[in-house]
Amino acid sequence: MTHPGFTGAGIDRADLLRLDPEKLRSLALQAGARLLALADLDPVLDEEGRLLWSEIAALEDEHIFLGLEGGSPLFAPLVRTEAIGRGAWGVFRALAQMSPRDAAIWGAARSLNEWHNRHGFCGICGSPTAPFRAGWGRRCGGCGAEHFPRVDPVVIMLAEHEGKVLVARQPQYPAGRYSALAGFVEPGESIEEAVARELMEEASLPVANIRYVASQPWPFPGSLMIACLADAATDEVTLDLTELEAAIWVDKAGVAAALAGEAGAPFEAPPPFAIAHTLFRRWIEGDPA
Amino acid sequence: MTHPGFTGAGIDRADLLRLDPEKLRSLALQAGARLLALADLDPVLDEEGRLLWSEIAALEDEHIFLGLEGGSPLFAPLVRTEAIGRGAWGVFRALAQMSPRDAAIWGAARSLNEWHNRHGFCGICGSPTAPFRAGWGRRCGGCGAEHFPRVDPVVIMLAEHEGKVLVARQPQYPAGRYSALAGFVEPGESIEEAVARELMEEASLPVANIRYVASQPWPFPGSLMIACLADAATDEVTLDLTELEAAIWVDKAGVAAALAGEAGAPFEAPPPFAIAHTLFRRWIEGDPA
Repeated sequence: MTHPGFTGAGIDRADLLRLDPEKLRSLALQAGARLLALADLDPVLDEEGRLLWSEIAALEDEHIFLGLEGGSPLFAPLVRTEAIGRGAWGVFRALAQMSPRDAAIWGAARSLNEWHNRHGFCGICGSPTAPFRAGWGRRCGGCGAEHFPRVDPVVIMLAEHEGKVLVARQPQYPAGRYSALAGFVEPGESIEEAVARELMEEASLPVANIRYVASQPWPFPGSLMIACLADAATDEVTLDLTELEAAIWVDKAGVAAALAGEAGAPFEAPPPFAIAHTLFRRWIEGDPA
Repeated sequence: MTHPGFTGAGIDRADLLRLDPEKLRSLALQAGARLLALADLDPVLDEEGRLLWSEIAALEDEHIFLGLEGGSPLFAPLVRTEAIGRGAWGVFRALAQMSPRDAAIWGAARSLNEWHNRHGFCGICGSPTAPFRAGWGRRCGGCGAEHFPRVDPVVIMLAEHEGKVLVARQPQYPAGRYSALAGFVEPGESIEEAVARELMEEASLPVANIRYVASQPWPFPGSLMIACLADAATDEVTLDLTELEAAIWVDKAGVAAALAGEAGAPFEAPPPFAIAHTLFRRWIEGDPA
């Protein structure tokens, strides 16, 4: 079993401490308390490729409490940035050398920072908001409304037909890269309905027997990726060319070659920390359902 | 197999039409085009318990395009309301008599209206926003940022130990009601990590072998409910009394009695349109995994 990327932080989020600023302040001054280093929203790594942390001089309102590790609190800075909405490509090289635990901790910090930067004003009344709950919420200074971090569920799926799965590429992908199809879950639909709708919209492909496989948080900016398999009724597809530029059906040998990075592989696979990679691996190892 | 509530609308969301206001305007004037009746955010039912619809005089910017049914467009009004954030109890009686298709269509309209009412101003710059994409987005009149409907993933789960599952009640539940434990998925965690965290936070219960069961949209205000089973390492629980007031372990016969509404049942089950009901039924019919 392959664990999805950005999971396995292994820290205790200790949510009750978010409501106890006095206790958090005293914990922050103990030995072992640490503040994550961020360069804008990107990770800062030491010589061995590990996340860099610093000691804490004084707890500030704009520190985000990530959780406890071995009883010591971990914080991330709240970074004011113009870089919100930026995609993943810029940090893929750093992520490739980071441990799963480091990627998970940094991912949470990045998602929360994205959300803070997009919610400096109240959607209900337009007044400025300020962080509360140790960085896990913002409260409006005008109407008092409380706002909580946003997580966007996204379905990502492989449609299967006669031993092959459909992979597609978007124009902005690196050369040769193909991946599973994906799309946001909309209000008023289940995971299964979103999978069927997206395959119909993007490839005109009717599917049935939709099975959940795995999930991961994706910090660009804050998605919950929900990976599924589905049985396609046909291998005839018509692509939505506003979203996708090409699609191919690939068998298990072809997917295995792509995951292994072989020169003759039919496509270049997404990196190991993307759940598409996990989904491909689970599929060739045998449907979990 | 029991279908989760608020699924099965059976309409074509026809997302490309959202970007084509001219075509939508002409479709809206054809015979068969209909506008959903809403009383504030609540459903309006005819004498046979079906959603009430009206003809469309003229398409307005504030009509939400729900999708096509038999080629005819369905719209919902964009309702300005102070009732945002209101819970589900007030419409449970109406929902109990609505068809799954009607509940699903109304649920989508309610969730979208909740989101519009909470996002009249831009989180990034504080300027007023206006609907675009036929009600599936809002654009800021100041900075131009585009905002899209929010869907909050929530995990809801049954921990199982020696043939029994843990059910709990919140203080605001009706007398006798117990349900599965639940909580929002946070930034930086997978579905499986959220299930484990919530059971630890609310009941101090360590679990393993977490299995996805089913999902549903929940329109109060706009959640994606993700139902799971998990194996508990023990039946000793310590409740977080700020969230829960009581919890009991129930076997399959007890759950079956509760779902059947029997007088001697150990608890009163959630209504059929809640995914907890589906989760209970799937568990007694046999773990799908």
